[in-house]
Amino acid sequence: LSRAECEALLAHEHFGRLAVSVGGQPLVFPMAFALDAGDIVMRTAEGTKLHALIGAPVAFEIDGWESTYHSGWSVLVVGRADAVTDPTRLAQLERLPVPRWVPGAKPVWVAIRPTAVTGRRIPRPDEPSG
Amino acid sequence: LSRAECEALLAHEHFGRLAVSVGGQPLVFPMAFALDAGDIVMRTAEGTKLHALIGAPVAFEIDGWESTYHSGWSVLVVGRADAVTDPTRLAQLERLPVPRWVPGAKPVWVAIRPTAVTGRRIPRPDEPSG
Repeated sequence: LSRAECEALLAHEHFGRLAVSVGGQPLVFPMAFALDAGDIVMRTAEGTKLHALIGAPVAFEIDGWESTYHSGWSVLVVGRADAVTDPTRLAQLERLPVPRWVPGAKPVWVAIRPTAVTGRRIPRPDEPSG
Repeated sequence: LSRAECEALLAHEHFGRLAVSVGGQPLVFPMAFALDAGDIVMRTAEGTKLHALIGAPVAFEIDGWESTYHSGWSVLVVGRADAVTDPTRLAQLERLPVPRWVPGAKPVWVAIRPTAVTGRRIPRPDEPSG
């Protein structure tokens, strides 16, 4: 998929998977997200593993089945996770339609600035392909 | 979710995401899979990044929306990826309904023996939750 196709899919979707490495052990978390100024932004909570990994390299993946492509697709974003601290941007992020995962916990907004965005088509699991 | 609920979901699903760490950089790959003798098994191809990571710690995640739970759910399997070399088991795996992702490439079957299986309910992205 082209970079433009990947960005269109990222703008359209609101749910993906975040991968982080904790002491060499990869972990995956399903996350609601939005695209904001080219960044993948998501809300987490203080004290979670996600918050502990701010500043670390991460991967964020979305996938789905688009009739447009007559196949499945997957987009992989690679970058670094950083906490958003700018009050103006935080106020803007709070207006995005990203649900809270830990009600009551103090939210921490994390932004992933992509260093690489790649996408590919994948065969449907129910489609003979070999 | 209980261990039994997690195992039932793993037995029912056939598509998930594999996370591996390459030089400290997590990566995520959507993968067709099956459950075989308690292992997550999937077909990859020689020369791929996946094959290079045999012996490494990995994470495998599935998620979905189950009306049973009236919410979303996610199951995370943590373990080590190993190549299957036993000819008897390889013959059995070839009969599983796992599609090939790289037509024509020599298949390498990878098995993840879980060291931890955890599952949780997650709010639907379109559900107010905070």
